[in-house]
Amino acid sequence: MELNRALEALKELETTLHAYRHAMGVLTYDGETVAPRNSAAGRGDTLALLSGVEHDLMTRPATKALLDELEAQKDALSHTDRRRVELLREESDDLTLVPAKEYMDYQSLLANAQAVWHDAKLSSDYAAFAPYLEKIIAYNRRFAERKNAQMKPYDALLDTYEKGARMETLDPFFRLLQTELTPLILEIGKRPTPDTSFLRQSFPIAQQRVFSERLMDIMGISRDDCAIGETEHPFTDGYNKHDVRITTHYFEGEVLSNMYSVIHEGGHALYELGSGDALEGTVLAGGATMGIHESQSRFYENIIGRSLPFCRAVLPVMQELFPAQLAGVTPEALYRAVNLAQPSLIRTEADELTYGLHVMVRYELEKGMISGELSVKDLPGEWNRRMKEALGVEVPDDRRGVLQDSHWSGGLVGYFPSYALGSAYGVQMLEQMQKTVDVWGSVERGDLRPVTEWLRERIHRHGCLLTPAELLQSAMQAPFDPSRYTEYLKKKFSALYAL
Amino acid sequence: MELNRALEALKELETTLHAYRHAMGVLTYDGETVAPRNSAAGRGDTLALLSGVEHDLMTRPATKALLDELEAQKDALSHTDRRRVELLREESDDLTLVPAKEYMDYQSLLANAQAVWHDAKLSSDYAAFAPYLEKIIAYNRRFAERKNAQMKPYDALLDTYEKGARMETLDPFFRLLQTELTPLILEIGKRPTPDTSFLRQSFPIAQQRVFSERLMDIMGISRDDCAIGETEHPFTDGYNKHDVRITTHYFEGEVLSNMYSVIHEGGHALYELGSGDALEGTVLAGGATMGIHESQSRFYENIIGRSLPFCRAVLPVMQELFPAQLAGVTPEALYRAVNLAQPSLIRTEADELTYGLHVMVRYELEKGMISGELSVKDLPGEWNRRMKEALGVEVPDDRRGVLQDSHWSGGLVGYFPSYALGSAYGVQMLEQMQKTVDVWGSVERGDLRPVTEWLRERIHRHGCLLTPAELLQSAMQAPFDPSRYTEYLKKKFSALYAL
Repeated sequence: MELNRALEALKELETTLHAYRHAMGVLTYDGETVAPRNSAAGRGDTLALLSGVEHDLMTRPATKALLDELEAQKDALSHTDRRRVELLREESDDLTLVPAKEYMDYQSLLANAQAVWHDAKLSSDYAAFAPYLEKIIAYNRRFAERKNAQMKPYDALLDTYEKGARMETLDPFFRLLQTELTPLILEIGKRPTPDTSFLRQSFPIAQQRVFSERLMDIMGISRDDCAIGETEHPFTDGYNKHDVRITTHYFEGEVLSNMYSVIHEGGHALYELGSGDALEGTVLAGGATMGIHESQSRFYENIIGRSLPFCRAVLPVMQELFPAQLAGVTPEALYRAVNLAQPSLIRTEADELTYGLHVMVRYELEKGMISGELSVKDLPGEWNRRMKEALGVEVPDDRRGVLQDSHWSGGLVGYFPSYALGSAYGVQMLEQMQKTVDVWGSVERGDLRPVTEWLRERIHRHGCLLTPAELLQSAMQAPFDPSRYTEYLKKKFSALYAL
Repeated sequence: MELNRALEALKELETTLHAYRHAMGVLTYDGETVAPRNSAAGRGDTLALLSGVEHDLMTRPATKALLDELEAQKDALSHTDRRRVELLREESDDLTLVPAKEYMDYQSLLANAQAVWHDAKLSSDYAAFAPYLEKIIAYNRRFAERKNAQMKPYDALLDTYEKGARMETLDPFFRLLQTELTPLILEIGKRPTPDTSFLRQSFPIAQQRVFSERLMDIMGISRDDCAIGETEHPFTDGYNKHDVRITTHYFEGEVLSNMYSVIHEGGHALYELGSGDALEGTVLAGGATMGIHESQSRFYENIIGRSLPFCRAVLPVMQELFPAQLAGVTPEALYRAVNLAQPSLIRTEADELTYGLHVMVRYELEKGMISGELSVKDLPGEWNRRMKEALGVEVPDDRRGVLQDSHWSGGLVGYFPSYALGSAYGVQMLEQMQKTVDVWGSVERGDLRPVTEWLRERIHRHGCLLTPAELLQSAMQAPFDPSRYTEYLKKKFSALYAL
């Protein structure tokens, strides 16, 4: 095939693939936000059928022949085109390992599992969800085992979300977090608890919705390109750089829950919105890995959002919207309150210091389930035991325990470590950013543009054009060094608690 | 092909067709409810691609051969299977008349036109929308002209929404409405206007949202199967009988606007929700024609919803939710207020008596645009002239004039007469229903089940299994007689205004 014809065929393949993924993405988003409860089965059927077409598209002989052809002419391809072929080949190889029928059944299972999990969480009924989780784990184990020749099963799952992540490096990473942070957490436990009573009031949800809009304004997220919805568990999805969705949740007595959900998901959104124009419609558009994605969300949520300068910028907005509740509160008091460090039950609400240990618990449980050492039946007990061991907390019910996250019901097994890795990447990004950007001066003025521009330049705009390793090098300018993360946490929290 | 094999292939065709339509439906619903503004172009591309697959599926030689095969074995088919083949053949023939590229481009155009219309309406900027309408009319004229051999172009469009509707019968129908109702409208104009001041107050939107839920409860619409969203222009869509969506809109100063939108769309929803279980996933599921669909929505909105017994049932709910605003209001006062009959600007807010003339204006304008006698450029002037002529109102701006409805931007040219026909069908259904059901006693007790059960039995459950003519016969037990409709209106409004 002539090169130009082959490139046209490549474009057509990507356009078709994108349309199916767009449709499946919106069906899923709709399902999690506004669809009626009983719609899950019908949506599962449709997702199964569409994913069957996607599978066929990516594994059919014509697609493989096209990729062969383009690989054979590799030297004549631009860097961008080479990378497109490379990624499509990876996806094609991965899908080829999974029979179409199995892939379709899995999509249908997930649509139903999400709905069942939602109800099970609300009623703290693990038994209702367990049969679905059983199947999801079995599917994931099967998917992973097919890569046995290349890597261990759980490594194969980790690799899906964070290219190159392996137990061999994650085991010592989490060990480091535990060793370095546990003494600090214990020490802080002996200190007086900062005053958070001003947050334990009623913050009407209608006003919180306005606050979400204001937070998106501060982050420079245009509502013309990014909508906000409501779900039990906040998340972000994007179909192209003019169609990104974030979700949040509202609790009248927990103003911080929505606030940091919006900032976290807003960080994901900025990544999707900042993808390079030239990449639109290709497989290179959007985020590179979930670890890098979480580096962006956690960067805004914690490094920026839980900084004193940000508290100075956001407090006037909060006081405008909640004048009675927040009268007389100082930025310093807000800063101490949003950094209240103490063992807790819910990962998404956890402070920056204890957060990594929540992730560690999930990492160990996933390893056990995929290796077969931990059964789905024993999971809640093991969850509770490990939470007690790592954080010293007693889990009162499964709603606030094993059922709290939507990841497993959505099929995301191996995803959790991305949060901890992303948090750690962010610290090394901050160190580089501060060399050329007046980070804290800008943030204190409520101007996040210099921060976002720096990240856009080094990460967002590249989509998947650079490899994950290249992106991290571009932003961190050094190899990954998790001790930078623990040092940052130790310094921040020692100062906060006057240790 | 063996018959069983052919029936299996038929099932597979329907399943695939249904999945694509489900996906396109949700993409469109999402676009009109929650998607960000700039998402239209990307959605248009995806809808174009998916509709191309739908077109191919329905027009490919294998599909036609399958339908040929089944038609050849017609006598061996069950009634249901014969009807499935019949409808698929009709759809295949219709789509065969449209080249795939044209069909795809049209879907993309509509996605963009909806977004442009939305903004144009809000800013009353007809010029921004006109180029899109120009193209939509041209497409519709082209689609219609391809059926020239069978019928006139505008008749071909009418036939899409109300099988068998023709100008030949609609011209005298609208003439009858005008002749019979105009004198009554003029006479009522001389009478004292009922007191509606209690409706001209602030009804907080948060409370109106609760009211919507209560109205859905009264109508027996389970939120597990039907969700409610918010749009500029209310509508209903359904993907299967466990996934129906209605939308409404809220205005703080117009509590009736939301109230009757919910009841109207709720009527559509009940039709979709009542479709027979055995029809699920086949082309026979859901509403038969748009005229019959509107007979259901308009039945609940007006015949039930604007009756005195309904006012008696709903007023306590309204007073519970809006105690200050509605203290001391009697059911009779509410009844008179919701039946305030006077020429107005907005079709969806119009009273039952003048409503038909709003439809007539659109009918005449569509005829003119499709015949080419009326240009899109001249449309607003002609709209205003005809509104003045038919209803005596001066249209102050295009927002409250030619831009008010979302139909044309959605490609629905020829749809409007369905509203007037449906309203008229409903009266003949009521006459039959009253023979066996204690309609007003039940409604006054707030129990709409006997009404819904009667309609479900005669209409809803049949989906498209019966022909439109058979369905109407099933519910009206007599040929269509629009004088029953004008008689009903004359009787109701003469009593209301003591003429």
